[in-house]
Amino acid sequence: MTQKFKDYKTNEESFKWLKEARDQKWAEIKSSAKWVDFIMSKKFDRRFYGIYLLETYHYVKENPRHQAIISLRDTDAPINYLKFCYEHAEEETGHEMMAHHDLESLGLNSDDIDITMPLASTEILIAYLYRISQYGNPLRRLGYSFWAEDSYQYIQDLLGAISENLSLDKKNMTFLVSHSTIDEKHSKEIEEMIIRFCKGPDDFESILEIMNVTLTLQSNMIDEVVVEYQKLVENKSTKYGFLNKLTE
Amino acid sequence: MTQKFKDYKTNEESFKWLKEARDQKWAEIKSSAKWVDFIMSKKFDRRFYGIYLLETYHYVKENPRHQAIISLRDTDAPINYLKFCYEHAEEETGHEMMAHHDLESLGLNSDDIDITMPLASTEILIAYLYRISQYGNPLRRLGYSFWAEDSYQYIQDLLGAISENLSLDKKNMTFLVSHSTIDEKHSKEIEEMIIRFCKGPDDFESILEIMNVTLTLQSNMIDEVVVEYQKLVENKSTKYGFLNKLTE
Amino acid sequence: MTQKFKDYKTNEESFKWLKEARDQKWAEIKSSAKWVDFIMSKKFDRRFYGIYLLETYHYVKENPRHQAIISLRDTDAPINYLKFCYEHAEEETGHEMMAHHDLESLGLNSDDIDITMPLASTEILIAYLYRISQYGNPLRRLGYSFWAEDSYQYIQDLLGAISENLSLDKKNMTFLVSHSTIDEKHSKEIEEMIIRFCKGPDDFESILEIMNVTLTLQSNMIDEVVVEYQKLVENKSTKYGFLNKLTE
Amino acid sequence: MTQKFKDYKTNEESFKWLKEARDQKWAEIKSSAKWVDFIMSKKFDRRFYGIYLLETYHYVKENPRHQAIISLRDTDAPINYLKFCYEHAEEETGHEMMAHHDLESLGLNSDDIDITMPLASTEILIAYLYRISQYGNPLRRLGYSFWAEDSYQYIQDLLGAISENLSLDKKNMTFLVSHSTIDEKHSKEIEEMIIRFCKGPDDFESILEIMNVTLTLQSNMIDEVVVEYQKLVENKSTKYGFLNKLTE
Repeated sequence: MTQKFKDYKTNEESFKWLKEARDQKWAEIKSSAKWVDFIMSKKFDRRFYGIYLLETYHYVKENPRHQAIISLRDTDAPINYLKFCYEHAEEETGHEMMAHHDLESLGLNSDDIDITMPLASTEILIAYLYRISQYGNPLRRLGYSFWAEDSYQYIQDLLGAISENLSLDKKNMTFLVSHSTIDEKHSKEIEEMIIRFCKGPDDFESILEIMNVTLTLQSNMIDEVVVEYQKLVENKSTKYGFLNKLTE
Repeated sequence: MTQKFKDYKTNEESFKWLKEARDQKWAEIKSSAKWVDFIMSKKFDRRFYGIYLLETYHYVKENPRHQAIISLRDTDAPINYLKFCYEHAEEETGHEMMAHHDLESLGLNSDDIDITMPLASTEILIAYLYRISQYGNPLRRLGYSFWAEDSYQYIQDLLGAISENLSLDKKNMTFLVSHSTIDEKHSKEIEEMIIRFCKGPDDFESILEIMNVTLTLQSNMIDEVVVEYQKLVENKSTKYGFLNKLTE
Repeated sequence: MTQKFKDYKTNEESFKWLKEARDQKWAEIKSSAKWVDFIMSKKFDRRFYGIYLLETYHYVKENPRHQAIISLRDTDAPINYLKFCYEHAEEETGHEMMAHHDLESLGLNSDDIDITMPLASTEILIAYLYRISQYGNPLRRLGYSFWAEDSYQYIQDLLGAISENLSLDKKNMTFLVSHSTIDEKHSKEIEEMIIRFCKGPDDFESILEIMNVTLTLQSNMIDEVVVEYQKLVENKSTKYGFLNKLTE
Repeated sequence: MTQKFKDYKTNEESFKWLKEARDQKWAEIKSSAKWVDFIMSKKFDRRFYGIYLLETYHYVKENPRHQAIISLRDTDAPINYLKFCYEHAEEETGHEMMAHHDLESLGLNSDDIDITMPLASTEILIAYLYRISQYGNPLRRLGYSFWAEDSYQYIQDLLGAISENLSLDKKNMTFLVSHSTIDEKHSKEIEEMIIRFCKGPDDFESILEIMNVTLTLQSNMIDEVVVEYQKLVENKSTKYGFLNKLTE
């Protein structure tokens, strides 16, 4: 167990540590992930953003499903947590359509967009989120929501680099902007859930693990988006060939 | 296909026919089901009500789960219907605790109440609701909500007979009263969903079938409650022995 | 609990009682089910057999799936029982094609056969078999196999009446003959499983309940086949209209 | 798509390419994975092997389940492939007990062994295997079996290093030896399935992807075992503290 959580005193204090751990994890990613450097270098065209939006479409579509699945299990989770899971699932439903809309806004027809299978790293992210929602501590998925609902503060510079480099405006970035904006409501809600339902250091440790692992898996996904983009540039990819239209 | 739906013109008209079919199905049950006569005869003690509450606890606990499961499937159901399913699941969560509360209000301690396995007919009802939520027309489960959310008009006399015969007051009947009261909001919502999302006679036919079948299965469940009660009276049942405390 | 099982001494003796209970349940069905009289009256044409084969196709297709599902659960069932479930699933796979073959053997092309949705009573049977395989005592599904693998002795007269009335020969009845023939191997295997893995009267009681309930549900299914056949005769059914070809 | 599969001519030839791709992937892992160097350095005690066995226990327990799950889906996979999945599930059932046995053989009592939760990388491997069994091309899981059933040729030197360094004999390595031995039967069977059921380059491409990804995920798992071992050496881990008994 992480040293901090071993010294557990209150949920409020542990939540503060969780926030510090999130800062630290993002700092790690920002300083070492290949995709971060790639974006800051500004040497890419709209096809990179297109692949990113496609993979986002895939994993976001599953978010409400593994959120709701927690309440389908036989656990001793409190009724208000079960209600939260359904409510949150409802709110997340259809958000993949924002990524789809952004793709169309770049000049693709709906028929152009080939939504076949996600990349392997996207499937890994989806798979892991299903698994942790179906097994183990029912609270642990909060570790995913904890960063996913509150990322703007960490990626503001990256969004700026993308938007500037590709000359995008707001209507091309509805998913990223709406999802990275500090969503006061959701972010507050996740905080409340964590403080209300955690019963000690084990719950915090589980949430911390999911936070760290899912941030890594999401980071791996964007790394693979870069790899696929480079294949496209080198005319090696057939799967994303339809995105070449974005550079015409 | 039912003659009426063959002559399909509009959703509004078909909804009217659906309502008539519900009146007709309830009329059938009221005139022929054994449990209806049994209740109206007023020859039973609180143990009958106790068994009913236990079985209700079991099937009601599953309601939000098979409601939500519809949105976990890969169907072409519209996003607003998926959102409705999660929202409705959220609202139904924990309602089994009303049945539990009513049991306790009769004088049982929480520890007395043996929540083991439901009766076979209760398992059949639960099983069927899961199946129809997981397979076939994703709209068809609305046929269950259509009667379950709006039954007071049909069972008012039965509730009266139970309450009078057992000298129950409101605090002993939170589940039945809250669930059979014409819930304007829910009942209106189900109507809206049906009229908004049905695309023709096939959808109405599917909803009609689920309405009829689940009403029959619920009726069968109460018939089995009567059978179990009679075993208890004849000292044949061990499973519900703990309910004998209700007659002391 | 059934009196006999209360007096539980050994698995061997309890198994004998289980067999007696099966004889008794079949005797009840033979003496009271509408479909039994219907068949013995010999007043039906091949469309009745056609509807029966279609419904059989539907429920038989699911048999291996709910058989295997037991081993996917986290239970404390012994490894050899888990292995039995997979092995039995393997053996049952594709048996629905026998029913399909029999339909074709009557003169239908594969394209004629409309395998859409099963009847409500067939869905109830399927639904219940899934439920009992996913919840409760993992041994209890043996109560279904116990009669399903060894029915010839009970329905020999019925098969005779069908075959005689419709002038069928063996190649039209591959499903019924192969499945009702006393399958020495399977029947012996089920017996072994029951005697090997049951740990006392509760296990036998669970198996007995599933035997009785699934026999009733199967009997209900054939009753509904009769009802559907009568609709077809009265030109009321559109769903099975393609079976009219069998009487040309 | 991989160049080789684009030039697809026959299944036999594509299978040959798949084998070459497996050689290549293993060569990559052998030359670059941290855990390979770690093992060849022979600087570890039996606790490393203990952690490896625990994680192996966790993922191996799930193998038959996600194998069988393929046949529970509604796909157009041929019946003989469905039968293979059940049969293979049956054969894999209980193999986790070999890992458990090996742990006990080192001197742990069954009660000492704390089988709580697997490591994150083990959960990722399990999660991904479930996902690919439940979605996408039903043949693609063969890419996992393709390497998992035939690994001895690749890891013989590593097994030698472990066994020599820890003075293990055969009875301490039942899992590794039985599973890495070239299992003529299984390995032949997987080859047959691939050649029999693949219908063109897309199937081979799917199988190739799963082979590569699952080999990477398994390699990541052993990397995390090394990390956990190092924590144990530095007295930082509490989770695996019970393994310290192995060095007494």
